[in-house]
Amino acid sequence: MNAISRLLRPRSVAVIGASSDPSKTAGRPIAYLKKHGFDGTIYPVNPRYQEIAGLPCYADIAALPEAPDVGIVLLGAEKAHEAVRALALRGTAAAIVLASGYTELDGEGGKRQQALLEAAGSMRLLGPNTIGLVNLTDGITLSASGALEMEHFPVGGIAVVSQSGGILGALLSRAASRGIGLSKLISTSNEADLDLADFVDYLVDDDATSVIALYMEGLRNPEKFRQAALKAARAGKPIVVFKIGRSESGARSAVSHTGAMAGADRMYDALFQQLGIIRAQTFADLLDLPLALSSARQLRGKRVAILTSTGGAGTLVADSLGMAGFDTPAPDESTAARLRDLQQGGPAALDRNPIDVTLAGLQPDLLRGAIRILLDSPNYDAVVVIVGSSGLAMPELMANAIKECLPTSDKPVLAYVSPHAPEATSVLNAFGVPAFTTPESCTSVLAAMFDKASRPAVVTSPAMTQTSVDLADLGHGSLNEVQAKQLFARFGVPVAREIVVSNADEAQEATRELGGRVVLKLLSSHITHKSEVGGVAVNLYALDVGPRLERMREEVKANTGETVGHFIVQEMVPGGVELILGLRRDPLGIAVLLGMGGVTAELFNDTSLRMLVPGAGLDREQALAMIQELKTWPLLNGFRGRPQSDVPALVSAIVAFSNMAAQLGERLEEAEINPLFVLPQGQGVIAADGVAVLNP
Amino acid sequence: MNAISRLLRPRSVAVIGASSDPSKTAGRPIAYLKKHGFDGTIYPVNPRYQEIAGLPCYADIAALPEAPDVGIVLLGAEKAHEAVRALALRGTAAAIVLASGYTELDGEGGKRQQALLEAAGSMRLLGPNTIGLVNLTDGITLSASGALEMEHFPVGGIAVVSQSGGILGALLSRAASRGIGLSKLISTSNEADLDLADFVDYLVDDDATSVIALYMEGLRNPEKFRQAALKAARAGKPIVVFKIGRSESGARSAVSHTGAMAGADRMYDALFQQLGIIRAQTFADLLDLPLALSSARQLRGKRVAILTSTGGAGTLVADSLGMAGFDTPAPDESTAARLRDLQQGGPAALDRNPIDVTLAGLQPDLLRGAIRILLDSPNYDAVVVIVGSSGLAMPELMANAIKECLPTSDKPVLAYVSPHAPEATSVLNAFGVPAFTTPESCTSVLAAMFDKASRPAVVTSPAMTQTSVDLADLGHGSLNEVQAKQLFARFGVPVAREIVVSNADEAQEATRELGGRVVLKLLSSHITHKSEVGGVAVNLYALDVGPRLERMREEVKANTGETVGHFIVQEMVPGGVELILGLRRDPLGIAVLLGMGGVTAELFNDTSLRMLVPGAGLDREQALAMIQELKTWPLLNGFRGRPQSDVPALVSAIVAFSNMAAQLGERLEEAEINPLFVLPQGQGVIAADGVAVLNP
Repeated sequence: MNAISRLLRPRSVAVIGASSDPSKTAGRPIAYLKKHGFDGTIYPVNPRYQEIAGLPCYADIAALPEAPDVGIVLLGAEKAHEAVRALALRGTAAAIVLASGYTELDGEGGKRQQALLEAAGSMRLLGPNTIGLVNLTDGITLSASGALEMEHFPVGGIAVVSQSGGILGALLSRAASRGIGLSKLISTSNEADLDLADFVDYLVDDDATSVIALYMEGLRNPEKFRQAALKAARAGKPIVVFKIGRSESGARSAVSHTGAMAGADRMYDALFQQLGIIRAQTFADLLDLPLALSSARQLRGKRVAILTSTGGAGTLVADSLGMAGFDTPAPDESTAARLRDLQQGGPAALDRNPIDVTLAGLQPDLLRGAIRILLDSPNYDAVVVIVGSSGLAMPELMANAIKECLPTSDKPVLAYVSPHAPEATSVLNAFGVPAFTTPESCTSVLAAMFDKASRPAVVTSPAMTQTSVDLADLGHGSLNEVQAKQLFARFGVPVAREIVVSNADEAQEATRELGGRVVLKLLSSHITHKSEVGGVAVNLYALDVGPRLERMREEVKANTGETVGHFIVQEMVPGGVELILGLRRDPLGIAVLLGMGGVTAELFNDTSLRMLVPGAGLDREQALAMIQELKTWPLLNGFRGRPQSDVPALVSAIVAFSNMAAQLGERLEEAEINPLFVLPQGQGVIAADGVAVLNP
Repeated sequence: MNAISRLLRPRSVAVIGASSDPSKTAGRPIAYLKKHGFDGTIYPVNPRYQEIAGLPCYADIAALPEAPDVGIVLLGAEKAHEAVRALALRGTAAAIVLASGYTELDGEGGKRQQALLEAAGSMRLLGPNTIGLVNLTDGITLSASGALEMEHFPVGGIAVVSQSGGILGALLSRAASRGIGLSKLISTSNEADLDLADFVDYLVDDDATSVIALYMEGLRNPEKFRQAALKAARAGKPIVVFKIGRSESGARSAVSHTGAMAGADRMYDALFQQLGIIRAQTFADLLDLPLALSSARQLRGKRVAILTSTGGAGTLVADSLGMAGFDTPAPDESTAARLRDLQQGGPAALDRNPIDVTLAGLQPDLLRGAIRILLDSPNYDAVVVIVGSSGLAMPELMANAIKECLPTSDKPVLAYVSPHAPEATSVLNAFGVPAFTTPESCTSVLAAMFDKASRPAVVTSPAMTQTSVDLADLGHGSLNEVQAKQLFARFGVPVAREIVVSNADEAQEATRELGGRVVLKLLSSHITHKSEVGGVAVNLYALDVGPRLERMREEVKANTGETVGHFIVQEMVPGGVELILGLRRDPLGIAVLLGMGGVTAELFNDTSLRMLVPGAGLDREQALAMIQELKTWPLLNGFRGRPQSDVPALVSAIVAFSNMAAQLGERLEEAEINPLFVLPQGQGVIAADGVAVLNP
């Protein structure tokens, strides 16, 4: 057993600084260990007691009869590192440090945490500032979370890893109240050593865990996390993450809470998507989505049958589903006929959807028969059963009826519980029928299931085969426009034809060479906003270009005080859709960003983003997905009689640009093509302007 | 007392078709009346019994010793009308009909409902297909809702009117489980007679009600509803509505559920906004928003202090608030100093936000002191108190501490309960501290409170003073482009200068007259897509226009088979932003629609909408709000160095167009200006093209 396994399943636990008063935080871990059935050895350590809760209490760690698997350190920050050092000396596998006062504080906190880590040496460390962990699978609670005051916790397949201890407690108690079974809960908090990725990696191998739920404030080691997530993808274990820091307020709060690392939220979005991680949009989703996914049922389409025994609730669910693009079609003729046969007489409305058995009352036979018929129907992909107040008197009977239908199909069967009915909800969940209490959660979970089924398999080992370009001659610093485009061209991005000139005569000749109609631009490596200083003129003919060049020289001089020596004469690009293709650097990594040009698209911030795996570019599929993710994708796709754009050429340009970013890595500080013209089908793309900054 | 008052507060209730078995639906109303303390007279009516629940049972309605205030009819649809007729004959104020089988079914259902209504005569009718009503203020339950099985219901200021009986039950039980006090709940369902509007009207006058919550599937009488909503606005009683039918699935389901009338959801959105009605976005909001609004506290800004005694939950709330544009600034220096003074020593993080007192533990004194200081601070507009598991052991103590702070300020104080803790939630709500269990609901309620405080007062009596235009000469049918624009111009919409011509020579002369550069268009009252048939040419000079006219005539002939006799020569409009201004007709009423032109804006469906009050146009404020609601409003407002557009002229054009719609009313079947060019500041707007269809 490695150290993390011993941390999760210790045979012996030392509790350093234990109190004999279970109402105090320091008294809780031992009380909870006993209450929830830990059958290993507990060693209280506290020089002030002879015994705690009937267990012999040791004066210090040196006095323990053996090296414990785990030490729970309940001392404050001023003493915790001493206990950690002593535990490490004894050969303890891992220590859990609850004290706060580390990186979540400014100033001294960081140093204190570093000292703590050094004291641990090769012993693993959970925390500091953690509430500990709870292993429900094996009945082991290594935590002071007040949520453990509850008597009973359903055991199931959902594991939780949280960068906050309070959130661990909230999820633990909320899950228990709804009958949702969990396997392990770990609060990593400050992550001086063990972090989210370590536990994801562990849980992928944990047979008791089928879905992993993460509460994330920020990733300290994105690459390690990526590897763990890929391992989960390979194992087919879904990861659901609720990540805060979506807003500035939240990001600020997260940084001060556990010293999490900031990073642009959009980068996280891209990372999650590329790793096949499902992002919870609301906090409730963080339990709801794993609950549905742990049922391991398959959603293959968006047609949902709603079976209701109460009026409006079916409509609530239908409306919410409709807003997310689900359909709730009426039963086909043969299904409707079978439903009618089921019920002898009675005015139940079985030929529409929601299929309403209100008046028929909640007879288990009818319910069972109807669910089976709906699951049988080739025209439904899932069934939502609405539980009204009539079902409350006999929740087990009803839950049983639904449960009995499950083996006949692998389509999802969910329950929506309309009145306040915690008992019914718990029974349904215990019986394997995911039960929800808001119509919106029914929609979220079906959307997540559909998304999961329909998204392409995660590429677990990216192709590292991009062509390697010889860059021996490459300098550094800000490239000028011509140099930047030459760099892009080396990797295969088509660029506009252009000639550098320094006077009117050369400009005129260049114009003739480029077809007689051109754009004239100043050439400079440090004037970045050319148009604003009068450094761009379009649609010039050979006769005009010379005088225009002289006027531009004067204008730029007047605006910037600088005398421009060189100009670009560039072919006029014949129309096309304007895009922006660029690079984004972030604590999380490097990303390629594609954006629609034009002010309207800018107002809607219409961009898409892909993180680069270190050293690898994007493949064509990823590039195409980026393009199709743009809300203005129809503009490239023949919307309203526009010509179809050359999407394959755009895909090639994105791949080429990403290969450049991959090969240059840290050397490429900045790069952007703006505009990138996408011409009609068969005519390619042209980079008309660009910037690049290279590090030495 | 009028009939509706007698329905809500009857002194005597006859229950027709009562059963002696309280487990049956027909046995429930009497059981619930007794259980929840009705102190009036109950008359069971059923020929099969001598007595029910200790009450003498009558064989029929004629045998009753007096005319009851209310008759609850539990008979099926085949007999209900007979009981209704008998009740009406006796002089009963109102009957409640539970039977289904009316307009919610196709075919015979509508006729049956009509017969029921006729049987009622001047007696008022609630239902059919209703679950009845519950008056918690006075302890009167006239309902068979299974939710009444619960023992206790907190009484408070929130009234519920629902077009679904099941939803009534769901809200009743959900509110009770959270300690949220309600006043009255009424299920109107099929609304053969009494509808939502009747009860809104009643509840505005009800002293026990401070906020009205509506579950709406569709309005049968929009004008009556408008009047009731305006009355509520005048009385300062907020209305919160959850309306389904936002998606096609939901709309279909609603129609089949209670036979509700469909209408475009966007029209409802506009109607609600114009009436100052707050629209709940999730079903949970339908309780949460009224809960917060019934506290009657005032949110004047978007700066929120979060006081937390548990780690991550404060971050959850901060992040959610940030996404809705709220700010969570750190305490200003003097507030931070006061907070530090409060706590002698201890490492609580009081100088940031969330203000974290985790380590200080949950001491009521500290809590009280901190809340008071935060409420005092001029830099906070509201306080959210996070309740962690540490607060669960003593919910009353904590709730009391918060409650005691309320009188010192009228700023909102909310609680977010992080673990599953129904008792704490109930106690907080009972103590007047609105308590929520999702971070998103904290955000929704603050957003609703802010929105309510910052939106302009509802115009309760719209100005009916638009200029009346003489339209004696107006014909009917489809107007051609020129006629349409002339109609718009009569009401004051500036239109492009144009001349109708029929041959090349006239076109050339017209071109000279219009400044030498023009647009040429075919003129027809029935060819609507001119450009698609070759009927538009732009940017023509006097020399070109003649030959171009002849070519156009040929092209249109080739495309449509039609020989065009007349053409429009129109001035070239010099640039400007293109908009669309049109009319939308809907079962709900007539609306003016403003949309940004151009394909990109179209992709984002960037439009805004205002319903017209019958007979009145829009005022300038409403028109300006429509413009500023466009997501692309910055395009008119100098975005990225564009010229500032002539917004006052656009406002005038919208007002003029709306006056036209108001004066013409039902006569105007269709009207649209497309494009409407908005020129730079001071240069006005110009309607370049338009259509209008007039009814006889």
